[in-house]
Amino acid sequence: MIIDCHGHYTTAPKALADYRKRQTAQLDVPGAPPLAPDVRISDDEIRESLETNQLKMQASRGVDLTIFSPTAGSMAHHVGNETTSRHWTQACNDLIHRAVALYPRQFVGVCQLPQSPGVGPANCIPELVRCVEELGFIGCNLNPDPSDGYWTQPPMTNRSWYPLYEKMVELDVPGMVHVSCSCNPNFHHTGAHYLNGDTTAFMQFLQSDLFQDFPTLKFIIPHGGGAVPYHWGRYRGLAQQLKRPPMEELLNNVFFDTCVYHRPGVELLLEVVQADNVLFASEIIGAVRGIDPRTGYHYDDTKRYIDAVEWLEPGHREKVFSGNARRVYGRLNAHLEKHAAAAAAR
Amino acid sequence: MIIDCHGHYTTAPKALADYRKRQTAQLDVPGAPPLAPDVRISDDEIRESLETNQLKMQASRGVDLTIFSPTAGSMAHHVGNETTSRHWTQACNDLIHRAVALYPRQFVGVCQLPQSPGVGPANCIPELVRCVEELGFIGCNLNPDPSDGYWTQPPMTNRSWYPLYEKMVELDVPGMVHVSCSCNPNFHHTGAHYLNGDTTAFMQFLQSDLFQDFPTLKFIIPHGGGAVPYHWGRYRGLAQQLKRPPMEELLNNVFFDTCVYHRPGVELLLEVVQADNVLFASEIIGAVRGIDPRTGYHYDDTKRYIDAVEWLEPGHREKVFSGNARRVYGRLNAHLEKHAAAAAAR
Repeated sequence: MIIDCHGHYTTAPKALADYRKRQTAQLDVPGAPPLAPDVRISDDEIRESLETNQLKMQASRGVDLTIFSPTAGSMAHHVGNETTSRHWTQACNDLIHRAVALYPRQFVGVCQLPQSPGVGPANCIPELVRCVEELGFIGCNLNPDPSDGYWTQPPMTNRSWYPLYEKMVELDVPGMVHVSCSCNPNFHHTGAHYLNGDTTAFMQFLQSDLFQDFPTLKFIIPHGGGAVPYHWGRYRGLAQQLKRPPMEELLNNVFFDTCVYHRPGVELLLEVVQADNVLFASEIIGAVRGIDPRTGYHYDDTKRYIDAVEWLEPGHREKVFSGNARRVYGRLNAHLEKHAAAAAAR
Repeated sequence: MIIDCHGHYTTAPKALADYRKRQTAQLDVPGAPPLAPDVRISDDEIRESLETNQLKMQASRGVDLTIFSPTAGSMAHHVGNETTSRHWTQACNDLIHRAVALYPRQFVGVCQLPQSPGVGPANCIPELVRCVEELGFIGCNLNPDPSDGYWTQPPMTNRSWYPLYEKMVELDVPGMVHVSCSCNPNFHHTGAHYLNGDTTAFMQFLQSDLFQDFPTLKFIIPHGGGAVPYHWGRYRGLAQQLKRPPMEELLNNVFFDTCVYHRPGVELLLEVVQADNVLFASEIIGAVRGIDPRTGYHYDDTKRYIDAVEWLEPGHREKVFSGNARRVYGRLNAHLEKHAAAAAAR
């Protein structure tokens, strides 16, 4: 089985973005009430948007299941206020739920959270609970910079995050650390802000005792961990110099995806990070959508890069392609079993 | 010959930091005038600080020459105002000049610049000219984030930088892109801010026409280019998607050092970046000072990692260890020849 742990619904029907436009337009109207979710999309529109895009690509690449969440770049937590963020988040998560309900063997949901600058992440708990308990989601995306490019909020290891982490542990759902857009002209979103967010979060974890406080809390750092595996020696050395525990201890709690868009990068990731901590992902129809003229294949066809690593042991390959995802996402097996059984019964 | 293009005077005698303390203390005294450089250090103190540290380590590792600049983390451009930055910069650069004057065959100078948030980089021109023309320096360090962690200033491709770039081109000196400290609790300085700065600058260059405007301007991105070589495919794909010229065109102007502190990272760098664009560097007595218990050698002993790359062609090895530095730093050969001749005449 092949599980892609990192996919976003970047092809959502236009009515979702239209709601967002209307919602944010209201913010400019003095005294106007917030616009609650009001997104009209038919099942057929959802089918069309997925079958011509993600599902087609998954099938052609041999990917069985994608762990699917709202578009990260559109979370835009800096926009408006807490209510704005809550409404928009509910709309996005509801649409993921509908996509998963239509294709439960091809997708499983991960939710966006209603983060908002100046508001402690505890405000995200009700939406997390709703998504996990009512909608069957198996994880969440956490934005380490809800200011979207200015990093004005406390680090992810700050105690203001603890109530949310307590709930994540209780629900047995991991978080993917994923920034959103960048309002800062210094940072291109997918070319700088994304990778910086990954690198930054890892170093925050390295500096703190967060995982002593939450021994079973799990984070996936996407985009191959930003700069981290490439600088593995730097981080091992910094941990030692800062008198932190050996860096490898973080691997009880921190995992990396394989969204690295060339073979040498993927090979380095698999060489320096133990096989238990690498989760297959490609983020299709995401940051980099083109075809590499050197290979004739999509840059983001990361399965090919992994397949090309000849020295990877079969048992390790299985872990990367599915075993680790089934372990890190504690609710994934139940989802798979439920829908396999339902399909068998049909 | 082996040239390390990235060393900072991190062991400067204490009187330098003492001046900085007095200088910044003045900032808190209402109406107090700025404290101009007032650093009393003897030649013997400089000798002692270098011979027991950098020079000893250079000799033990077989490094002939280090391109030497003030401590990057101490530039702290956010402190005080333009005058504060100018005075501190002059003090730091003068000390580099004295170190180089004592050991001109082991060191050559690169200057700090008096950047200051809210002040266009054109203010750096007089100090650059002084350092190059009067003190014999061969390059400068440019801080892409003089706010030191909040990225409030324009990107490096903004036109406000152009007067400085014109002068760099005229003087034939390259710039190393190097952030300073981080005031932002989200960013550990050497574990996140440094690498983020490298990644960010590269993407700024990729997005802009800067090198059409300055075809001979050269930048060295340190720390192995941050996340960039690890994500080489991502950047190639982004360049294509953004309808920019092929990413490789940046290699006429952008170079990477080898401050990557483990063998797999250095090997990836040498695999994906052409040999003409990689400059040997280790940043000794810098970010990571410990000994790797796995190897018994310092993490930052990057020469060992390069030596271990068996497939590197001899001609390419020579480029990495010295040829590229002699080409990128247009004034380096003159420095080497002058001091070799002086030594021969003695």
